[in-house]
Amino acid sequence: MDNLCSAARKVFRAALKAVDPYKAVYDSLAIKGTVLSLGGKRREKRPYDLTRYKRILVLGAGKATVPMATACEQILKKRIDKGLVITKYGHSGPLGYIMVIEAGHPLPNTAGLCGAQKIVTLLKETRADDLVIFLTSGGCSALLPLPVPPITLSEKKKLTDLLLRSGATIHEINTVRKHISMTKGGNLARLAYPSTVINLILSDVVGDDLDVIGSGPFVPDSSTFREAWDVLEKYNLKSRLPKSIIKHLRAGLERKVQETPKPGQPYFRKVKNRIIGSNLVALKAAETKARDLGFETLILSSQMQGEARALAKNYAAIAKESVKSGHPFSPPVCLLAGGEPTVTVKGNGLGGRNTELALALAIEIQGLDRTTFLSGGTDGTDGPTDAAGAIVNGSTYRKAIKKGLKPENYLAHNDSYTFFKETGGLLITGPTRTNVMDIHIMLIG
Amino acid sequence: MDNLCSAARKVFRAALKAVDPYKAVYDSLAIKGTVLSLGGKRREKRPYDLTRYKRILVLGAGKATVPMATACEQILKKRIDKGLVITKYGHSGPLGYIMVIEAGHPLPNTAGLCGAQKIVTLLKETRADDLVIFLTSGGCSALLPLPVPPITLSEKKKLTDLLLRSGATIHEINTVRKHISMTKGGNLARLAYPSTVINLILSDVVGDDLDVIGSGPFVPDSSTFREAWDVLEKYNLKSRLPKSIIKHLRAGLERKVQETPKPGQPYFRKVKNRIIGSNLVALKAAETKARDLGFETLILSSQMQGEARALAKNYAAIAKESVKSGHPFSPPVCLLAGGEPTVTVKGNGLGGRNTELALALAIEIQGLDRTTFLSGGTDGTDGPTDAAGAIVNGSTYRKAIKKGLKPENYLAHNDSYTFFKETGGLLITGPTRTNVMDIHIMLIG
Repeated sequence: MDNLCSAARKVFRAALKAVDPYKAVYDSLAIKGTVLSLGGKRREKRPYDLTRYKRILVLGAGKATVPMATACEQILKKRIDKGLVITKYGHSGPLGYIMVIEAGHPLPNTAGLCGAQKIVTLLKETRADDLVIFLTSGGCSALLPLPVPPITLSEKKKLTDLLLRSGATIHEINTVRKHISMTKGGNLARLAYPSTVINLILSDVVGDDLDVIGSGPFVPDSSTFREAWDVLEKYNLKSRLPKSIIKHLRAGLERKVQETPKPGQPYFRKVKNRIIGSNLVALKAAETKARDLGFETLILSSQMQGEARALAKNYAAIAKESVKSGHPFSPPVCLLAGGEPTVTVKGNGLGGRNTELALALAIEIQGLDRTTFLSGGTDGTDGPTDAAGAIVNGSTYRKAIKKGLKPENYLAHNDSYTFFKETGGLLITGPTRTNVMDIHIMLIG
Repeated sequence: MDNLCSAARKVFRAALKAVDPYKAVYDSLAIKGTVLSLGGKRREKRPYDLTRYKRILVLGAGKATVPMATACEQILKKRIDKGLVITKYGHSGPLGYIMVIEAGHPLPNTAGLCGAQKIVTLLKETRADDLVIFLTSGGCSALLPLPVPPITLSEKKKLTDLLLRSGATIHEINTVRKHISMTKGGNLARLAYPSTVINLILSDVVGDDLDVIGSGPFVPDSSTFREAWDVLEKYNLKSRLPKSIIKHLRAGLERKVQETPKPGQPYFRKVKNRIIGSNLVALKAAETKARDLGFETLILSSQMQGEARALAKNYAAIAKESVKSGHPFSPPVCLLAGGEPTVTVKGNGLGGRNTELALALAIEIQGLDRTTFLSGGTDGTDGPTDAAGAIVNGSTYRKAIKKGLKPENYLAHNDSYTFFKETGGLLITGPTRTNVMDIHIMLIG
């Protein structure tokens, strides 16, 4: 079992390494003489000849922008003419050419607003012979807040709160939000036009949909003011919303203000959105590592969602089948998955979705030999704890019972962190500076 | 989409065919001259030379015993000396050499009790030169009820009810039940000793554990009277149980009555328990069919359990990943799984676990092209309906909305059968005479 446990840690570390923000940018930008190309496995057909560009701007927003910007400086050095990235308080670091603004997250504040205004101004000033390298990572949306004036940040917050409580779908919420924003829904692409834009993205969104990550600042928006208005009517929100928002949406409906940039419009011709780090990228690196360690591998999905303890049942069913009949593969096998499960909190215990998933799985696989499972948050934190997740195996349950602890009780109280604190098995990494959601590693030896 | 739908039906039919009770027995018994061997893929090393046996008895209990017995008659014909099978009311059929008793299921009744007594008597009379072919299928436990006298059927029922409501685990419940039974927990093997026994099993139990199927009449029981007693104490049931049961268990504790047959005891030396049909057998046949149809295939697990709508989320995550990135495989791919999900009923709609799973999945995969999913009960019935399950695809959701139906509402009311009745997509097979739980087929074209 110890070998499997150590192998699981190695596989997790390999996953983290692949989505390190500095490394991801460094590996995806390749420079040779005056030619910049987007590296990685999907090498760009049309490289960027830097002699064609008068200026290079490095901009961005997100919790990981500082290490991403550091990589840009390493590669482009003095060629960077202007640089400004916005990151969360406490996430700054030393940069040579690029300015950093720290701002509020997850609640946007005026620091973010000022930063967003500066980025908008810089993009407005770009010309056809400029190259913009934009750095997107988790938190981008909150760190780049710019409602259309005179809508204020607090009015925008009120809108979001009302929409969230209304029962509107995430698609409906985004439709409204994109139509009151100066940055989201393709608006940055319009501002940057006709310069060349490379948007390097570290995705923390299930499914990696470009129009969802950071609310798609460089992606065409196919939703309309009409649809945004319909959402307000559907959920009966018109009377409860700030007047500034109603006024702007009505103006949009009457075509007095511009629609968000639509698919097929010229703004996107010179824009390249490139996902350089994602849950799937992490899973693929984990897969490579697991193969090196001698495991047959299978990536189930990078899009796992739903209640953590229900997911545990399904993972356990797959592990049991592998042990019993060699399906989907005979051991040694490494099953990999990732995503963002949820926990419906009913107790007042301490834990995150990773420790809860691991505890639920420990209950399901009790007595199953040679099976080890690791669930870890790639950002190194799991809920309000100092752990990234936990590692369990077929003996975890029995060992807890021997200590007089009842795993089912800890699960019932959402007290998974405390359970592992008492029995061992916590996965501690410290902050990783990256975030591509969670990684689940099942090793059957 | 129509092609995928038709392919899904073909794959499901292939799964059903593989676990047809008649066919499963017919294919697993091969006779050549006077030598009987257990066929199938795992061909028996030591065949049974029928000249060595004075008599052949065919016995059994379960909902599928009549077609299973028919296959025995086809193969063994006049060589059968005695035959008696117990089946559920309405499940009888014409047999030449083997007697049929119809009895109560799922609630045992005196008809089953009489049948069980007859089987016990026949087994007691067997000798070393007899061959017993026993036929086990779903419902065996209820159709073979024989509590140790003077415990009555209604007293046994009271015990089961109390145990179910106490929060005892299924393992704990079985421990107690095996210790008040004359048939379960290896007791039939003791009665049959020293004759030769071939127990042909059609499993309707998740995981196919031999000691769980029919409560393991031919399988050693490692649980003890002491453990059975501890269960009563743990759940504080002693004062509430019929005196006859308490008296018997106390006698067992004081070693005044015999323990259940234990592993290593001679009773099992000449017993062969052979699973001839199971969810996994059905999945393997489905896999072969899907490959023939040009799909890459993957059997995830035959042991899926847990809430149907949670399982739908996980299946959807895997389908979306396949479409997006080609993991675990690029289309055309057929993902196969099976088991027995549950539905926590909150509404008063009409449906079974298969239609509920299909409806939940239709919501999850809305808009996903070239993806079709079938969920079907192998017995041809799904909950209290005339359907076996349902087939959905990426357009199911949109089509329902167009008709003015809101899929989420039907799911919220557990009204999945009604949903498919109105939108189409019901899978109707009629009774199949077999049961290896449910089959889930995801085709991505």
